[in-house]
Amino acid sequence: MAIARVEEKLGLYAEVARQLRADAIRCSTAAGSGHPTSSLSAADLMAVLIVGHLRYDWKTPKNPANDHLIFSKGHASPLNYALFRAAGAITDQELMSFRKLGSRLEGHPTPVLPWVDVATGSLGQGLPIAVGVALAGKRVLRAPYHVWTLTGDSELAEGSIWEGLDHAGHERLANFTAIFDVNRLGQRGPTELEWNLDAYAARVRAFGCEPIVIDGHDLAAIDAALERARRADGPTVVIARTLKGKGVSFVEDKEGWHGKTLDAEQARRALAEIGDVPSRTFPTLAPEPWQAPARPAPRRPEWKTYGEPVATRKAYGEALAALGAARADVVVLDGEVSNSTHAEDFKKTAADRFFEMYIAEQQMAAAAVGMQVVGLIPFASTFAAFMTRAFDFIRMAAISRANIRLCGSHAGVSIGEDGPSQMALEDLAMMRAVHGSTVLYPCDANQTARLVGLMAEQGGISYLRTTREKTPILYADRLDDFRIGGSRVVRGGRPDDAVAVIAAGITIHEAIKAADELKQTIPVRVIDAYSVKPIDTAALVDAVKATGGRLCVVEDHWAEGGLGDAVLAALAEAGVAHQITRFAHLAVREMPASGKPAELLDAAGISARHIVTAVRGLR
Amino acid sequence: MAIARVEEKLGLYAEVARQLRADAIRCSTAAGSGHPTSSLSAADLMAVLIVGHLRYDWKTPKNPANDHLIFSKGHASPLNYALFRAAGAITDQELMSFRKLGSRLEGHPTPVLPWVDVATGSLGQGLPIAVGVALAGKRVLRAPYHVWTLTGDSELAEGSIWEGLDHAGHERLANFTAIFDVNRLGQRGPTELEWNLDAYAARVRAFGCEPIVIDGHDLAAIDAALERARRADGPTVVIARTLKGKGVSFVEDKEGWHGKTLDAEQARRALAEIGDVPSRTFPTLAPEPWQAPARPAPRRPEWKTYGEPVATRKAYGEALAALGAARADVVVLDGEVSNSTHAEDFKKTAADRFFEMYIAEQQMAAAAVGMQVVGLIPFASTFAAFMTRAFDFIRMAAISRANIRLCGSHAGVSIGEDGPSQMALEDLAMMRAVHGSTVLYPCDANQTARLVGLMAEQGGISYLRTTREKTPILYADRLDDFRIGGSRVVRGGRPDDAVAVIAAGITIHEAIKAADELKQTIPVRVIDAYSVKPIDTAALVDAVKATGGRLCVVEDHWAEGGLGDAVLAALAEAGVAHQITRFAHLAVREMPASGKPAELLDAAGISARHIVTAVRGLR
Repeated sequence: MAIARVEEKLGLYAEVARQLRADAIRCSTAAGSGHPTSSLSAADLMAVLIVGHLRYDWKTPKNPANDHLIFSKGHASPLNYALFRAAGAITDQELMSFRKLGSRLEGHPTPVLPWVDVATGSLGQGLPIAVGVALAGKRVLRAPYHVWTLTGDSELAEGSIWEGLDHAGHERLANFTAIFDVNRLGQRGPTELEWNLDAYAARVRAFGCEPIVIDGHDLAAIDAALERARRADGPTVVIARTLKGKGVSFVEDKEGWHGKTLDAEQARRALAEIGDVPSRTFPTLAPEPWQAPARPAPRRPEWKTYGEPVATRKAYGEALAALGAARADVVVLDGEVSNSTHAEDFKKTAADRFFEMYIAEQQMAAAAVGMQVVGLIPFASTFAAFMTRAFDFIRMAAISRANIRLCGSHAGVSIGEDGPSQMALEDLAMMRAVHGSTVLYPCDANQTARLVGLMAEQGGISYLRTTREKTPILYADRLDDFRIGGSRVVRGGRPDDAVAVIAAGITIHEAIKAADELKQTIPVRVIDAYSVKPIDTAALVDAVKATGGRLCVVEDHWAEGGLGDAVLAALAEAGVAHQITRFAHLAVREMPASGKPAELLDAAGISARHIVTAVRGLR
Repeated sequence: MAIARVEEKLGLYAEVARQLRADAIRCSTAAGSGHPTSSLSAADLMAVLIVGHLRYDWKTPKNPANDHLIFSKGHASPLNYALFRAAGAITDQELMSFRKLGSRLEGHPTPVLPWVDVATGSLGQGLPIAVGVALAGKRVLRAPYHVWTLTGDSELAEGSIWEGLDHAGHERLANFTAIFDVNRLGQRGPTELEWNLDAYAARVRAFGCEPIVIDGHDLAAIDAALERARRADGPTVVIARTLKGKGVSFVEDKEGWHGKTLDAEQARRALAEIGDVPSRTFPTLAPEPWQAPARPAPRRPEWKTYGEPVATRKAYGEALAALGAARADVVVLDGEVSNSTHAEDFKKTAADRFFEMYIAEQQMAAAAVGMQVVGLIPFASTFAAFMTRAFDFIRMAAISRANIRLCGSHAGVSIGEDGPSQMALEDLAMMRAVHGSTVLYPCDANQTARLVGLMAEQGGISYLRTTREKTPILYADRLDDFRIGGSRVVRGGRPDDAVAVIAAGITIHEAIKAADELKQTIPVRVIDAYSVKPIDTAALVDAVKATGGRLCVVEDHWAEGGLGDAVLAALAEAGVAHQITRFAHLAVREMPASGKPAELLDAAGISARHIVTAVRGLR
């Protein structure tokens, strides 16, 4: 390139960087809160990226050829929004609405803005999600896009960052570039490694990615690094030494300025230092025209039907296989336990869309979120107990308005000998407390298949809880009637039932045994509340009315936050709490140990024998 | 050492290893479940450790000079228990009770056994906890013990492992040694890195620890490595190449044998291969006699008292400072936000007992668990939203019967402009669903101080939820009356109250405003349910009786799993559900955005105005 051209380019970058700095200060000062200094450190990096390297059709955020840019350091939202302003995606007026009620420009980015893929702000999440977007681009879509993620240095202390880089390295994601903004200062003081760029480089290299170490304020160096990153044949990490607050002398590299805004006078001085910057729109690079190859039209999945006892986890795997054959947009991820969750069965029909995530549940959840960004339908599974590992990612996925499906196997004490570390006893509480979630808990294989089918169509975060042990088949007919928000009466159902037992999953079978034993003396209605959230309030109200309010809830879960709480909340919401005359709640209340499944159900007080006693006590 | 001595030593190691292998097979075959092959790969490593290097007084597991050995690969419990047998801690008869109901030898180790520090079995946790034990030994106790942790290779995919090694490196924990049992095979097939020991060594080195790469079946090499590890001046990781199932030809290095036991005939053949091994007790090394220096006797903490509005998070920090001055066994950990949680105030009285955990919430929780192993009283804090990152560690801490105190700040929509990524709206649900947990949510600074004091005395997992904004002082008297399981009536309290509003934390102040506004027309009882778990059932029942069952619960939390569910569950358990004639539940039901705290409380429908409307509707 001619020297004049190079100088012109660098001049443009500098101009963009000045505007980004000025706008980050202006909007955060107007808001009176936010993170200007964390924005300033990365302004040069982002200026070069946005006008020199990012290929993005700002008019069509859903263009499948668009690059992706994820601010893993979500608190640098002033910079993120300033970028959108520089690209012409938002007006200066909207920029100045930052952090105000009703504004799309929230304190941390969310996909309320069409150019934001996912919500960030819980540190250490954007990078692993970017890995998921890159993985989908490389292995499923074969798309031309490159995935860029801006990462702060404080968040490099999160293990999830290294899970992400490990997977980027293992999968050789040449379409992935992380940009580490190493500004040395965290919230409360220096970071662990400060400006030890060699240490970061060694870590990055050891995790299978190519480090590119630069001065993050040298525009030519940034330009070269990003060019090298896009052309590399593996994943890259640009490790940029930066100054927090760069460009404003009185905050530059100073402690005590994290998450603080400049007041009006300070902002005036800062803008004077940066120079007179009329806020304007800069030309950016469009992606090459590309259309994803047409997928075969989805077919109706051919669900297997079952007659003999089968574990619901096995039915989950076989349902995934049916989905895999029927739809080309379903992808499956598993945390190195696919022969236990039975997610491995998906490989029989769609091996190329199965992702082994090894024992890295955070990365698994993040990759699922990343894959739905580009329109795929991810199902991710591990033992339900280990879903707790990914709770922060699941919580954030809801803020991302992500559509992901999770399956937790080996729920409850009924797993038996492995003991409490492997028993999920809090997963219903966790998943109920996710905004807009759907929580399903099947008790037989035929039901499981249909619920998996419903999950594929369901938006938001949906969760399926499966059981280790084989369970008898209860359902041979009306299989198309299962629905989210539904339930099924499996014993009784007459207006003169004396007691209603409400259960789901493994305890349905105990409840049925109890009801059958009591048949001659007490007519028991057993309700299969397979949809724990939303729960079938109408069926519960009907049971209250029929039984004169005699209810027994039985669950293989701690007493808090699960089915018992869901039933009471629904009845109270429906205004019939006062009709609950007698209430028994059988749940796990003592720490379980090891034993045979039946022994442990009994020891926990949730076996048929205990249900019989409880029901008798309710008469 | 004379050649004869060396040969004698190696012969002893070999004999121990044979017994460990034989016992691991015998007990798992008798149980019919468990992980013999994952035990066999590490048998040589553990044989050399237990008779040659571990300094442990098996008769006195609480001896403060004892080394610590934590099986991060908890599924190798047959090996762990075989070690206990070889050390004479348990009998052969007890060994054979493995995984049976009532046995202390659960499927994965738990501290039901006095030689087990913590429960493991959720992979990637034992190592970070071991870092916590080592950190306490080095920085607080100045104890002579060395901490050893046996880690599987599959679990090295967990980011938490790298958080742990990062901290071990940063703190230069010379008393810490991890032993990587690199047997190449995970549950469902090969691990990501298989036998790429160089890759592991590079990662370990990059994270600040010294790698020692060996053949994990070469007894002399193991001996030398463990010796070097103990003498090193920094943290060490022995990276051992091993064979899964080593010592039994037909399972050695074979896929498909994870978590599978040998049947009786296979066990017979295996034991024949291993050789005739009479199960016996071997001599082990005792620790050097050492007593911890006497600590100053604990004094009664001098709680600050408050009159002007103060944020409960600030009162938390100042209460920690009071505790730090009064007790030498309190330690404080924080996830790089101590100027927000105000945990930094602890440094004013006990700077040497403050631990900066950077942004690594899993490691923070793990270190807290490790520190309580050696008798310290840890308080760990971060934003309540980010506690979700550590949920699996908290869940496991309950199985570890650990006594830890957690504080989550910035709860609810009332944080304001930062937006939903920083708002904890599921923490009450999460913490209620932890076995044996205590969940506290103060509304004023004086109450906060006293609850912190109660937490210091409380066993199990206790959790304090604090608020970002300053809140008025409600309590000036009876400050010693706050108790776990208590509540306080802050408005009304007469037998003819018309409606009871149950709230906690920030919503108490909204409820008071509402009650005061309604005073002339509707007598409202406002109950401060600061102890969310256990909740004050008697006070709730009394409110039901007084008001004819007219209740309104208001909480800055999702509708699921929080205060509303807790109230209904308590009343149902108390048998008075039928007396709840009218129930209103004001909680967060839509995804919040950014705005001012008051705006967001109002937008979520939990402000005074909404309470007034709800109470009127209950009349």
